[in-house]
Amino acid sequence: MEIITVIKDMQARSDKMRQEGKTVVLVPTMGFLHEGHLSLIREGRAYGEDLVVSIFVNPAQFGPGEDLESYPRDFERDLDLLRKEGVTAVFSPDAQEMYGENFQTFVELEKLPKHLCGLSRPVFFRGVATVVTKLFNIVKPHVAIFGEKDYQQLMVIRQLVRDLNFEIKIVGTRTIRETDGLAMSSRNTYLSENQRISALALNQSLQKAQELVENGQKDTFGIIDTAARMIRSHRETEIDYIAICDPETLDDMETIDRPARMALAVKVGKARLIDNILLKPKVSESNFKKRSRKADQ
Amino acid sequence: MEIITVIKDMQARSDKMRQEGKTVVLVPTMGFLHEGHLSLIREGRAYGEDLVVSIFVNPAQFGPGEDLESYPRDFERDLDLLRKEGVTAVFSPDAQEMYGENFQTFVELEKLPKHLCGLSRPVFFRGVATVVTKLFNIVKPHVAIFGEKDYQQLMVIRQLVRDLNFEIKIVGTRTIRETDGLAMSSRNTYLSENQRISALALNQSLQKAQELVENGQKDTFGIIDTAARMIRSHRETEIDYIAICDPETLDDMETIDRPARMALAVKVGKARLIDNILLKPKVSESNFKKRSRKADQ
Repeated sequence: MEIITVIKDMQARSDKMRQEGKTVVLVPTMGFLHEGHLSLIREGRAYGEDLVVSIFVNPAQFGPGEDLESYPRDFERDLDLLRKEGVTAVFSPDAQEMYGENFQTFVELEKLPKHLCGLSRPVFFRGVATVVTKLFNIVKPHVAIFGEKDYQQLMVIRQLVRDLNFEIKIVGTRTIRETDGLAMSSRNTYLSENQRISALALNQSLQKAQELVENGQKDTFGIIDTAARMIRSHRETEIDYIAICDPETLDDMETIDRPARMALAVKVGKARLIDNILLKPKVSESNFKKRSRKADQ
Repeated sequence: MEIITVIKDMQARSDKMRQEGKTVVLVPTMGFLHEGHLSLIREGRAYGEDLVVSIFVNPAQFGPGEDLESYPRDFERDLDLLRKEGVTAVFSPDAQEMYGENFQTFVELEKLPKHLCGLSRPVFFRGVATVVTKLFNIVKPHVAIFGEKDYQQLMVIRQLVRDLNFEIKIVGTRTIRETDGLAMSSRNTYLSENQRISALALNQSLQKAQELVENGQKDTFGIIDTAARMIRSHRETEIDYIAICDPETLDDMETIDRPARMALAVKVGKARLIDNILLKPKVSESNFKKRSRKADQ
C-alpha cells in the first residue's frame, strides 16, 4: 500500500495506472475509519483494481465554531485497517499542500445547498464541492464511492459531476448501522453513555415514519411532528431540522404521493448527528388500477 | 477537421488522442475569429499535434443588459479560417448542451475578480471560470492558450488551474493589434468610423504611460490622470476604469517601483473595449549599483 502526501506524486501515479488500463476507484474520507468507511471500500473494490482512499480533514468544509480542531484522528490505526482491506494507495496531504498560499477558487452550487444541512452549515457544501473537485483532479478516478448516510452530500456531488462534466461514475452506498440502529459516524465518539442512548432517537424516528407511511399516512407535517416528539422525549437532544423532501431537488414535500427522502440533523450533547431514510408510499389499489389503465392506452 | 457538438463525443475523441500519445492543445474562443485568435492558434500549434478550437458564446459570462444577443457570429467563416490553420477539431456545442436543465454549479474566485473588469461585470469571471472548467473536463487538453489582451481573465485561469489542480499548461500570448495600434477584438465591429478613431485613445494612452514611466515618473496617480485626459479628449468615450496594479494580485499600486500592469476599459459608443500593457520602470544607475553591491555580499 503506497502512502502519498504530495499532489504531483498522486497525479503521476494515477496517470500510470490509467495508462496500464487499470480502473482507478476513489473513496474519499476524513479518516478515523469505522465499519461505514470499510463498507464503502469493499463496495469500491468491486469497481476496479486500483483502490485509492483519501484521508483529509478538509478545513474548507468546517464553519467557525465547528469541530475542525477536535475532529477525531488516528492515522496509524486507519492505515492498519486499510492495509487489511487491500487498499492500493492512500492519499493523505496536509492542509498546506491542498490549500496553498493565496488559494481562492471555490466550487459552489446554487440550489441544493439551500436545504437541510446547508442552512445551518453555510460553508459546508462549498467546502465539500471544492475539495471533491480537487480530489477528482488529483486522483483522477474512474469511479468514486460516497455513503448515502450523507445524502445531501451525495446529491451535491452527483450534480457537480454532471454540471462540470467530470467523467466519473458516482456510486452511493447504503448506510451502515450499529446493531441497535445508530448510523455509523466518526462523530459518535463524542457521545457519553447516556447521549449514546439518546442518539438512538434519530433512527427510531425514521423507522416510525416509515411505519406511518406504510400505514397510509401521507401528510408530511404529521409525520415530522411525530418524529420531533420522539426525539425531544430523549434527554440532551436538540433538533436542527427534520425534513421530508423530493429525493432529487430536496424541495420540501407536503404529501407523500411518491417516494420521498426524510432527513434529519440532531445535536446530542456536542455531537451533531445526521441520518435519513427513503419513504416509499404504498401503491394503493385504486392508484395501481389508474396506472394500469394509463399504461394500456 | 472534425466538427463536434456533443460533449460525450468530444471527451471520447480526447481520450483516444491521449491514448495515442498525442498532445491535446485547446484554444477557447467565442468565435467571430480575427487575427488575434489566429495568433493564439498558431502559438498553440507549437505545443502539440492535436489542435482543438472551441467556439461557444458563453451565456454565463454575460450580465443582464450586456451584448449576449448582439455578440457577432459567423460560424461558416470561422470554420474556413480554422481549416486553413490546420486545426484538427472544432468543439461548438449549443447552450443547452453546456448548461442543461437544473444546471447550478459555478466556479468562483474570491479575490482576483474584485478588481478591474470584475467590478463592472460582476458575473463575468464566474462565467469564465465555470465554462473554462467545463471545457477542461470536456476537451482534456495538456495545454491551453489564452491572450494577454484579456489580462485579468488570463490571471483568473492561471489561478483556478493552480487551485483546482488541473494538470494543464496555460500559455499567455501577446496582444495582436491593427496597424494603427488598436487591440484586435470581435467587439471592434460595433464601432462606427468616428468611434474607430476614438478607440485609438486606449492604446495611445497606454503608450504615453509607458513613455512617462521610461522618463522616470513613478507616481501612478499622475500617470492615470494623464491617460484619462487623453481618452476624454476623444469623442464618445466613457472610461470604465484605468488602473495600475500588481501583475499577480491585481492590487492597485501607488508607486511604480517594480513592473506593473496598467489596464483600462473604455466604452466607445456601445462597444466596451479593454487593453493593457506591462509598465517597466527604468532601473536607475543608483539602484543598479545598490543591487550589484547586494549581489556581491
